[in-house]
Amino acid sequence: MKHPVLVLLFLLPALLAGQESLKVNAERLNQTLGQLAEFGRDAQGRPNRVAFSDGDLEARAYVVGLMEEAGLQTSIDAAGNIIGRRPGRNPDLKPIAFGSHIDMVPLGGNYDGCVGSMSAIEVARTLEESGTRTRHPLEVIIFTDEEGGLTGSSALAGVLRPSALGVVNSTGYSIGEGIQRLGGDTTRLKEVIRPEGSLAAFLELHIEQGGLLERKGLDIGVVEGIVGLRWWDVTISGMANHAGTTPMRMRQDALLAASRFIQAVNEEALAMEGGQVATVGRIDAYPGAPNVIPGKVLLSLEIRDLSDAVIDTLFDRIQGRADSIAESSGTQFAFTRPYSGKPALTAPWIQEEIRRAATDLGLSHQQMPSGAGHDAQDMALICPVGMIFIPSRGGISHSPEEYSSPEDIANGANVLLKSLLQLDATLAE
Amino acid sequence: MKHPVLVLLFLLPALLAGQESLKVNAERLNQTLGQLAEFGRDAQGRPNRVAFSDGDLEARAYVVGLMEEAGLQTSIDAAGNIIGRRPGRNPDLKPIAFGSHIDMVPLGGNYDGCVGSMSAIEVARTLEESGTRTRHPLEVIIFTDEEGGLTGSSALAGVLRPSALGVVNSTGYSIGEGIQRLGGDTTRLKEVIRPEGSLAAFLELHIEQGGLLERKGLDIGVVEGIVGLRWWDVTISGMANHAGTTPMRMRQDALLAASRFIQAVNEEALAMEGGQVATVGRIDAYPGAPNVIPGKVLLSLEIRDLSDAVIDTLFDRIQGRADSIAESSGTQFAFTRPYSGKPALTAPWIQEEIRRAATDLGLSHQQMPSGAGHDAQDMALICPVGMIFIPSRGGISHSPEEYSSPEDIANGANVLLKSLLQLDATLAE
Repeated sequence: MKHPVLVLLFLLPALLAGQESLKVNAERLNQTLGQLAEFGRDAQGRPNRVAFSDGDLEARAYVVGLMEEAGLQTSIDAAGNIIGRRPGRNPDLKPIAFGSHIDMVPLGGNYDGCVGSMSAIEVARTLEESGTRTRHPLEVIIFTDEEGGLTGSSALAGVLRPSALGVVNSTGYSIGEGIQRLGGDTTRLKEVIRPEGSLAAFLELHIEQGGLLERKGLDIGVVEGIVGLRWWDVTISGMANHAGTTPMRMRQDALLAASRFIQAVNEEALAMEGGQVATVGRIDAYPGAPNVIPGKVLLSLEIRDLSDAVIDTLFDRIQGRADSIAESSGTQFAFTRPYSGKPALTAPWIQEEIRRAATDLGLSHQQMPSGAGHDAQDMALICPVGMIFIPSRGGISHSPEEYSSPEDIANGANVLLKSLLQLDATLAE
Repeated sequence: MKHPVLVLLFLLPALLAGQESLKVNAERLNQTLGQLAEFGRDAQGRPNRVAFSDGDLEARAYVVGLMEEAGLQTSIDAAGNIIGRRPGRNPDLKPIAFGSHIDMVPLGGNYDGCVGSMSAIEVARTLEESGTRTRHPLEVIIFTDEEGGLTGSSALAGVLRPSALGVVNSTGYSIGEGIQRLGGDTTRLKEVIRPEGSLAAFLELHIEQGGLLERKGLDIGVVEGIVGLRWWDVTISGMANHAGTTPMRMRQDALLAASRFIQAVNEEALAMEGGQVATVGRIDAYPGAPNVIPGKVLLSLEIRDLSDAVIDTLFDRIQGRADSIAESSGTQFAFTRPYSGKPALTAPWIQEEIRRAATDLGLSHQQMPSGAGHDAQDMALICPVGMIFIPSRGGISHSPEEYSSPEDIANGANVLLKSLLQLDATLAE
């Protein structure tokens, strides 16, 4: 404590030597993951561990037990997040946090969130069993209700909207009621806010939720950032008319215009370099009868990319196409934007540590964006973050068909462990 | 009676001379049409005279009064049709029937059906006032519930399905209950069936429900036939997936495939010569969330033409396009056909009489199909039919915006009168 630099110089070689060989217990990790999957199944045995359900409560009790076995000082914060603390050699250093979530969407899968949560606990247990004491204090965080809107991490980042507490999920509980059920206290939510700069770093391991790693035969994805998302409601107005008596050339068919628009969205998203995606997921045509030419169509347009500027450019191009379609089809387009989320970039130097860890472990890797949202994007408001992806079979997620192999899961946990130790060793105070 | 041919030869010159000058009372016709429009308005004063509503009952009482003023022997048949009979000089001849309907779709218009109904009664009244006695007996028919599925004319043609009686319309009454309300008797429906060949001819005057006559500045449409209609339910199956994590080139987007299909339907309908129309009026995408790539789309495809062969050809071409789209987009298309209706052609020699009547009256005219269904299509199962169209402003129908000018209405009624007298004079027994 008195001469931290001397202590560090003295310990560093031993520490790095230890890191070299330190590995998680892959068998135990996959066994706890299998055990976790038993909690919160529906009547047909399908995974249905929605936040605040009885299954969620049972699984959380199991998780708390595992964290205690791993030697973590475990508590529930006012937002219901489960926090497991492990002291560092230097209590003056800011903690390094890592974790994920164990709740799922209705009829979800047993890997999204679960892999990162069980791996975080396994990493802590591995450190405990090997007697490895990090410089920085550590926090394993199992976040509340990720799938319902990043509830737990939003609370930590101070961006949880009071109105969100009234939102009811498929369990019938509102988020506010749910937080109380988890042992939180919605009257003390302000107390959980972590000021910007209060953590040294945050790491999250997650399944890819896409098919890129599997398709390319890669072991590890080094996440560049979590894409920003903009969502527009698009209204296309034409003229409803009789499908029998209105000649083809006299129509102002809003659905035909919508069809041209949907193709234009696809073409423009493909025409630009990069990984931007644009999706029309919802469509309603009015009046919606087989014998009436649609006079109005409402549809959703969603664009995601790591760069706000790319989203802007793509939307401009799409709007230009909409203008031409409107002119040639006698329809009008109107765009309103009910939702947008900023991109959250990971720290390049944390990416570098993850790459180095993967390389040292002999694992192939590639830099990639996360198209899905994660607790890490809220944590990026507080501290530098890093994310590690492992392959996800067929890119399937939010489905009972989700699957990642035990080897890939162990690889991910070992990259998490190694990156964490490297960060702990190299991070300036 | 004893020497009909001698009587005919004796009367013919006088009859033709009388026809030459005989015209309906245009002012009275438009006044009764305005009066009819007062029945069955909704709380905001909009036309809402749905079959079986109180407004329908009130309007029918008004119509019966008008028919009696016109000297017609008026009765309600077991299907609720109002029948007004006028004896002919030769009771052995089959009757010539003419008429239309006075019910409307919810928030419909005051011209669809009404113009033909009021004109038919005005024609009878003109004959009565002028002392013109036709050779053939005449029947003015105001059909029950045209908009709910040609109920009255289906009953006359013997094609009313028993299951139709259970269908409830916007009044809350089923068709069966409605027929009772109109003074019909659903236990005696078989009695109203008119055997094939039991009528000499049927004529119907109607608004065009399309914009062709208005656009071309024509007075009269000589209807070639009522188009056949086929309706398919189309299911497009792709793969639902995460809109953020699934790269553009890895998608099997059922809505994108549906969009290409909707465009292909339009292109193929336009590519063929002729007046065929093809419409996608209904679409549902599943799961229907802005952040999920649609995995399934259900849509309707409707094709109409005067020729079944043209419908076949167009559908074949559309199916060919669907096959290509399926192959290039990794989706599957399935077609099921819940409904089809055969084309109903009008009699060429009745068309010729209508053309001659219009020409003699100094009115411009054109042959055209009816894209909409009419009672005349059921009547075509019983006897030769003819239909006369008048211009409809903007081609709008089934809307409070429906409008035809008093001059066009009078023209239509005069063509109906003149065609009727010509048919009466020239029809073989």
